[in-house]
Amino acid sequence: MSLPLATLSGRTAVVLLSGGLDSSTCLAMASRAGARLLALTIDYNQRHRIELEAARRLAEAFGVARHVCIALDLRSFGGSALTADIPVPKTGLQPGIPITYVPARNTVFLSVALAFAEAEGATDIVIGVNALDYSGYPDCRPEFIEAFEGLANLATRAGIEGQARFRVHTPLLHLTKAGIVRAAHEAGLDPALTWSCYDPTPQGLHCGRCDSCRLRQKGFAEAALPDPTVYACTP
Amino acid sequence: MSLPLATLSGRTAVVLLSGGLDSSTCLAMASRAGARLLALTIDYNQRHRIELEAARRLAEAFGVARHVCIALDLRSFGGSALTADIPVPKTGLQPGIPITYVPARNTVFLSVALAFAEAEGATDIVIGVNALDYSGYPDCRPEFIEAFEGLANLATRAGIEGQARFRVHTPLLHLTKAGIVRAAHEAGLDPALTWSCYDPTPQGLHCGRCDSCRLRQKGFAEAALPDPTVYACTP
Repeated sequence: MSLPLATLSGRTAVVLLSGGLDSSTCLAMASRAGARLLALTIDYNQRHRIELEAARRLAEAFGVARHVCIALDLRSFGGSALTADIPVPKTGLQPGIPITYVPARNTVFLSVALAFAEAEGATDIVIGVNALDYSGYPDCRPEFIEAFEGLANLATRAGIEGQARFRVHTPLLHLTKAGIVRAAHEAGLDPALTWSCYDPTPQGLHCGRCDSCRLRQKGFAEAALPDPTVYACTP
Repeated sequence: MSLPLATLSGRTAVVLLSGGLDSSTCLAMASRAGARLLALTIDYNQRHRIELEAARRLAEAFGVARHVCIALDLRSFGGSALTADIPVPKTGLQPGIPITYVPARNTVFLSVALAFAEAEGATDIVIGVNALDYSGYPDCRPEFIEAFEGLANLATRAGIEGQARFRVHTPLLHLTKAGIVRAAHEAGLDPALTWSCYDPTPQGLHCGRCDSCRLRQKGFAEAALPDPTVYACTP
């Protein structure tokens, strides 16, 4: 089996880096593959702002050539437990689209990554979307990613001038959370640098009960790898 | 011929409103068609910040139900005369992609409009792109708009839940600038409320020589309608 993201060797890639486990794993994988790294963090005024600090630590740890943290206040629109005064669910994953779904978030994130990539002359974008654990999020589906890739090639100079084509890499798309934990381990990521919780405690701990904490715990347990996270409580 | 945007009658539409003549014409047309108006202005730290004031005046003039002005600093990326320290051209339109092209700008704008629309339960977006005068911009082409519409329906709850489909309306797509000036006049827009210049003078006048000023002047002249704009000089 070839190294994940092997085609990025020697190329410049824009990695969407939230500071969470998934995007940080993508950063580690792209680094391991030998890419020149650009990282993009979007401060969308999310409730769990602590993840922005994690993103800064990670960009430094992986020697990112340029890390842009850009503000885009999706709280202006609301419509999600991550961006409005709606409680973050604590009772476990439910069927359907979760209330933590942020309207059109990945479309916005990929678009801003496309702007960054085009301005830098890069044509590779890496995003840590996952179609298994986040199957309820419309913008984590493979057909969405394919459609965005097609759009990117119409939206930019490349589409008119027939230059190299944009590619959106989704190395975690078909992994379970346990698979992501293993991939992070193999790529040399220290998971203690990452942040998952949607609703941190005032002391800056993972709550241990939101969907994101539950998935993180389950991932480490199933991967049989040590979880360095301090959770305020257990589900 | 039916009224432009007639299908918007009684519906809620998100209008991308820069404060320029084109987007303001869209707002006036959607208003005339009987839509409930939401307006989205993106402060991308453009050089010509004076257009943000124009957007506010216009939203008020047309009784917009909700006007969101959201900051997204595309200057972080650069790559355009509108967002970097690159002189705005003053010698007339050249062939090819203009230096005033902002990487992936319309992709970003439409994505943010999609987030606003989805959060508000709206499925109609209006954007004043034009395929004639801006033929050099990749993200003003009809095939780009079609691709975005397809993406929007995969990216959102609507795509999973089979709800009403998103539509991107481009009422100016095939109009000349003179046609846009006439459409503005027919829709009852006071063009004095709008702003076009990419490089305003320190006194807050239209420079009269950038591509955008040239197109504006040409549009009024060819439409044989009075141009209320005060230009600092003539080309």
